[in-house]
Amino acid sequence: MYDVIVIGGGPAGASAAIYLQRFRLKVLMIMKDLGTLGKTNHIDNYWAFENTVSGQHLVEQGVAQAERLGVTVVEEEVIGIENFEDYVVKTTKNEYQGKTVLIATGQAKPNIKVKGFKEYIGRGVSFCAICDGFIYRNKKIGVIGNAEFMLEELEVLRNFTKDITVFTNGLGLPLHIEEEITEKLVTEPLCEIQGDEVVKKVVTEENEYEVDGLFIAIGTPSSNDFALRIGAFTENNYIVVDENHMTNVPGLFAAGDCIGGLLQVVKAASDGAHAAIAINKYLKTLKTV
Amino acid sequence: MYDVIVIGGGPAGASAAIYLQRFRLKVLMIMKDLGTLGKTNHIDNYWAFENTVSGQHLVEQGVAQAERLGVTVVEEEVIGIENFEDYVVKTTKNEYQGKTVLIATGQAKPNIKVKGFKEYIGRGVSFCAICDGFIYRNKKIGVIGNAEFMLEELEVLRNFTKDITVFTNGLGLPLHIEEEITEKLVTEPLCEIQGDEVVKKVVTEENEYEVDGLFIAIGTPSSNDFALRIGAFTENNYIVVDENHMTNVPGLFAAGDCIGGLLQVVKAASDGAHAAIAINKYLKTLKTV
Repeated sequence: MYDVIVIGGGPAGASAAIYLQRFRLKVLMIMKDLGTLGKTNHIDNYWAFENTVSGQHLVEQGVAQAERLGVTVVEEEVIGIENFEDYVVKTTKNEYQGKTVLIATGQAKPNIKVKGFKEYIGRGVSFCAICDGFIYRNKKIGVIGNAEFMLEELEVLRNFTKDITVFTNGLGLPLHIEEEITEKLVTEPLCEIQGDEVVKKVVTEENEYEVDGLFIAIGTPSSNDFALRIGAFTENNYIVVDENHMTNVPGLFAAGDCIGGLLQVVKAASDGAHAAIAINKYLKTLKTV
Repeated sequence: MYDVIVIGGGPAGASAAIYLQRFRLKVLMIMKDLGTLGKTNHIDNYWAFENTVSGQHLVEQGVAQAERLGVTVVEEEVIGIENFEDYVVKTTKNEYQGKTVLIATGQAKPNIKVKGFKEYIGRGVSFCAICDGFIYRNKKIGVIGNAEFMLEELEVLRNFTKDITVFTNGLGLPLHIEEEITEKLVTEPLCEIQGDEVVKKVVTEENEYEVDGLFIAIGTPSSNDFALRIGAFTENNYIVVDENHMTNVPGLFAAGDCIGGLLQVVKAASDGAHAAIAINKYLKTLKTV
């Protein structure tokens, strides 16, 4: 049983893990890979690095720093969080138990470069079938995605309507995914999302498709998806936390880009420190009960 | 004329200067020395440094980073800030003009290791003659200090009462300072500050001295002293800022330990980034007027 399971190994996650470990807590940090920051080549504005550094260098240093201080680090992909008496974090390989969980998985909002996409977020464009599917019962729904996560969302949406179109936005569709789709399937790249007050249609080079709602289910589940599934509030696709970085679910904390604010490395690292201090205090209240 | 004059070269100041410079602003950073952090040997919890680093290393890297990006850095001691149409920052050597000023001079609260000191802060122990002197008119006042700044505070306090005792707390008193003191002078080290609800007396090894108020004027003027002198609000000896890191004085910003909150390197660096973004926005509003 860990005191804290930190999901994410970037500036927020590793910074938190470092502080938590120094409080002599039992800390597990789960990271899928080096994350978005790991793909960034030039960082000039993180204080105390004279020369330009790569995001990969920073993330690797942070992980090594956490490990040196005693944090257990595993490279696994988290596929679910459950909250009974304690937390159970499921990865593709293992299950881990923790008294608290810190979500620090970075910017949660997947971005697709299609005209009209940003404009219609919250006005027909949704990131969560469980949250918004009900709004579109018996209506025309589009789902954008090409992998397992899209199938999960599709499964949820089938409860609400039969009129569903799956858009791969030009991405390849693995055979085992394609076999699961009984709906209309559009594999052309999207050109534009159109509407008036709300989304009305999806335009490709060759066609137009009427939709009332459009669900984005690209890639793997985001931090938000996990948060939402165990009842944490989100707003504008960011996880909502209080001044102690705790969500509305007791013991579930979040830090870094996934809670919004300034989307900068130094702010995420600072978030991690703040969250760690709050988690340490929270764990002490558990002991006295 | 600088767009921004940053006072302080630690994590908050240098981080802000780095961001400001990248906004293509004209930035001057004034630092007296490597500051409190520069005297710290072991930093383990600033994200992305695998091994323990010294505070000196971090501060020097941050300054070099700021200089590499184009920030003008001078090592001078600031002795005053004035606010007319623009800001004038006076150092022991020069005067600089700026459209805005960022105070990032670190923890403002001087600390003396005397029993009872912390207990009576705000209950008779004060850090600002201009702020609190009036409370003690015609009462017994003690002033702790041994240098120019103590004389400045003494000068202010003489307006309120004649019953003043100067305590050097065992520190050496330069002759040119001693010559200016016409008050009672106690050079023994202090043992304890005593009282009930409020301060009542200062105890040394050999004697006890009754006081109604005790002013701390050790070392050089702190960030707070500057802030107060141009009308910025402070609370519990921290500079009060809004969500944009601006004080109540337009164009005067503050970041890092001097505004309180978590007194950690990463938080100060994050403050700097936030303040820089706010200053950049503020400067744009000036242009449109």
